[in-house]
Amino acid sequence: MSDHICGAGCNHFSHLNDADLQAEFTEARHSLRANIGGTKTAGKAGSGGVTQRPLPSKKAGENVRHYYIPANKETIHWGYFSKSMEPLLKLDSGDYATIETVTHHSNDDIDRMVKGDPGVESIFQWDAKNKAIDRRGAGPMDHPLGAGGGLGVHVCTGPIYVNGAEPGDVLEVRIVDTMQRPSGNPDYRGKTFGVNVAANWGFQYKNLLTEPKNREVVTIYEVDATGEQTWAKAVYNFRWTPQTDPSGRVHPVIDYPGVPVDKRTIKPNYDVLKGYEIPVRPHFGMIGVAPVEVEIVSSNPPSYTGGNFDNWRMGKGATAFFPVAVPGAMFSVGDPHASQGDAELCGTAIECSLTGLFQFILHKKADLPGTKLYGLDYPLLETASELIVHGFSSPNYLKEYGYSENPGAEIKSSLDTAMTDAFNKTRRFFMDTRNLSEDEAISLISISVDFGITQVVDGNWGVHAIIKKSIFPK
Amino acid sequence: MSDHICGAGCNHFSHLNDADLQAEFTEARHSLRANIGGTKTAGKAGSGGVTQRPLPSKKAGENVRHYYIPANKETIHWGYFSKSMEPLLKLDSGDYATIETVTHHSNDDIDRMVKGDPGVESIFQWDAKNKAIDRRGAGPMDHPLGAGGGLGVHVCTGPIYVNGAEPGDVLEVRIVDTMQRPSGNPDYRGKTFGVNVAANWGFQYKNLLTEPKNREVVTIYEVDATGEQTWAKAVYNFRWTPQTDPSGRVHPVIDYPGVPVDKRTIKPNYDVLKGYEIPVRPHFGMIGVAPVEVEIVSSNPPSYTGGNFDNWRMGKGATAFFPVAVPGAMFSVGDPHASQGDAELCGTAIECSLTGLFQFILHKKADLPGTKLYGLDYPLLETASELIVHGFSSPNYLKEYGYSENPGAEIKSSLDTAMTDAFNKTRRFFMDTRNLSEDEAISLISISVDFGITQVVDGNWGVHAIIKKSIFPK
Repeated sequence: MSDHICGAGCNHFSHLNDADLQAEFTEARHSLRANIGGTKTAGKAGSGGVTQRPLPSKKAGENVRHYYIPANKETIHWGYFSKSMEPLLKLDSGDYATIETVTHHSNDDIDRMVKGDPGVESIFQWDAKNKAIDRRGAGPMDHPLGAGGGLGVHVCTGPIYVNGAEPGDVLEVRIVDTMQRPSGNPDYRGKTFGVNVAANWGFQYKNLLTEPKNREVVTIYEVDATGEQTWAKAVYNFRWTPQTDPSGRVHPVIDYPGVPVDKRTIKPNYDVLKGYEIPVRPHFGMIGVAPVEVEIVSSNPPSYTGGNFDNWRMGKGATAFFPVAVPGAMFSVGDPHASQGDAELCGTAIECSLTGLFQFILHKKADLPGTKLYGLDYPLLETASELIVHGFSSPNYLKEYGYSENPGAEIKSSLDTAMTDAFNKTRRFFMDTRNLSEDEAISLISISVDFGITQVVDGNWGVHAIIKKSIFPK
Repeated sequence: MSDHICGAGCNHFSHLNDADLQAEFTEARHSLRANIGGTKTAGKAGSGGVTQRPLPSKKAGENVRHYYIPANKETIHWGYFSKSMEPLLKLDSGDYATIETVTHHSNDDIDRMVKGDPGVESIFQWDAKNKAIDRRGAGPMDHPLGAGGGLGVHVCTGPIYVNGAEPGDVLEVRIVDTMQRPSGNPDYRGKTFGVNVAANWGFQYKNLLTEPKNREVVTIYEVDATGEQTWAKAVYNFRWTPQTDPSGRVHPVIDYPGVPVDKRTIKPNYDVLKGYEIPVRPHFGMIGVAPVEVEIVSSNPPSYTGGNFDNWRMGKGATAFFPVAVPGAMFSVGDPHASQGDAELCGTAIECSLTGLFQFILHKKADLPGTKLYGLDYPLLETASELIVHGFSSPNYLKEYGYSENPGAEIKSSLDTAMTDAFNKTRRFFMDTRNLSEDEAISLISISVDFGITQVVDGNWGVHAIIKKSIFPK
């Protein structure tokens, strides 16, 4: 447990440049799904292939560990957060974990994104007799669309219990590095793929110009797999056709995650976005800790504990800070993206499996006054040059609306209320953590803070405020 | 008149690197309010001190001119656009103009921003017997707050008539360079000042935490005047107290532009934002052409012809494209800013007089198909790396709401409708100018276009969409 607060330039427990750690992640770049050295951890994590090894300590008495968490049916939960889950593993403040995350859209192109990848195959396994991960979403197990109702769609790796974390503390999560997950299919050796879906929950769905109206369109992208180039290119697209899942349910629209797309039912169109190159911004769309208000909750609407807040700045080099709401924090991560625009307009990004190297730092409640983390009740993101405050249409929808199995349907999402929330939080940030008067805070915001539209598709719309760190007194 | 469409990398009539032109602008940096060489132009412009001289031509037969337009009571109009005004001057496509613009907030600190500057003094001159510029705004001349009613607040330099411009054409305006206007007061030699006002039309006004509620706060900033550094620092702030204008009207709130602030009535507070340094982003908040729908209209709400759209990217190196709605286009520019955040939250930026060097290029309607300007019915902004589409709560409020003397009060502003408009325009941009299918356009937008909040304070809220030019096929 940490009793230390990181300030600017702080290298708290920092092994960020540890050659051993970097070498391990580089190894992971080339041999995903193979554990990296170390010893199997005990209990549930061990059965999922999680390993751990101590890092060469930089300081006497320090005993920082590096965990490797492959993604497979033992290490993920699908479509929900829950404070009551058995944690995948327990780690200490300062520890690192390399975590594989898998996109819930992999089954939109089974050949490119599932086949030959044992971890992904184990997650998506579903036939008439068996479904590896039955619950998908926070809904009832007898939901007509399938267990969990698809009320929450993301494949989440975790949860991770941080030893010593208690409500009122803040969990800092540093993203040391990211990598795209290569296709496991020998036919696509050395390539990586992702998928964008213009879905029924997208901003465009009821506002289409051309026929047929109310269509959903899936576009498959190839994504630079080397990590050295930075492009994604469209391969083909197709319009969603009714898909019958292995349990016999027909899905006329995309209403349940992980339904395998039967290639024989779709018409691929390869004449798509010829010559266009999309800048790649690998990041985690869904990252956060469990809320205290309910036993189980959809992973779809973002909230004060983070979750699916879909900010593309949540990539390599960024740090997120989450208010801890339950013992151990119960951290999970998923919804990996290769690229997204602010707004995530059509409902998805380039959904693309990623592996991340994370460090976890716990900040105890008593140490927060006088720091930027004081009073934090939302996910705060930090990059090399910016602090990013996240506002939502409903800052804590579980408190505002009470529990509902499909909270996204109840929240009255509007950018106007999200803008008000982003302003309120940014003003409070300057007043509470920088000791500015309200008049100073408001002037500073108007002349130097940029407000952007994080997303309009997650059931609880987001507006973020970007504070440049260069404005602060030196 | 131009019959040429500029493409990527085009140097149409380009004297951007003309040594003579740069030397003239450099001279302007050091001796504002002195005309630069040339000969007085005829008519109204000449009486305002406007001069013109031919530029050394780079091509045979070319006869490009450079105009210098000082800001004074003869060269500005206050708070409105009008297609029926007598144009200040007429110029040809390809011509350049160095244009002084003056902030309408100069009288918030007369010593620093008016005194000793003959041009600014001539604009703000107002005593019991005489008011140099009587009409301020598009309201009636007998409005109880003063002539024009303050229904429109910006000091606009212009209008400039572009020879040959007709409805359906597009006017391109390149911002070659900008400079901050130095204080004319010897006590502040070599310094530049600006002002931020947390005003009654700001997003914060009805949502203040501390007493007294419903206050307006003026903060005076010193702005780097050399153009070599990039900071602004707060000097002092004060709360607005009822001000009696020279005609005897009392203004309990900021409801009419150019009311001189009586120093004896305010309490300056010098303990403000100590050590904070604001990055300077000089730009023009209000820039555009006259709409066709009405004789005279408030300069406050932005519309399809541009105007007060308040995007801080409208600075040096940027280019704006406006749909021409009336013969000659009737271009005006004002509302100069030293810095603003996306949203312009409290109602103003750092309002700071600027001088700009502009080039004007006319694109004829017949030449638009096949170019990025085809179908343009909003202000499009271009920077070195981006194309920026502007959406509004009401894309053309004059058409939607009919004429009103105070249109900002009628428009139902919401970021949700502005977001829809920005999406609609961006989709149309890709479909109409890039020949993409709707499915391609929507996917591309979701994964690569960033939507931001331009402003929430101008009576017609704005959302902009940033398209990275690097995505286009090479």
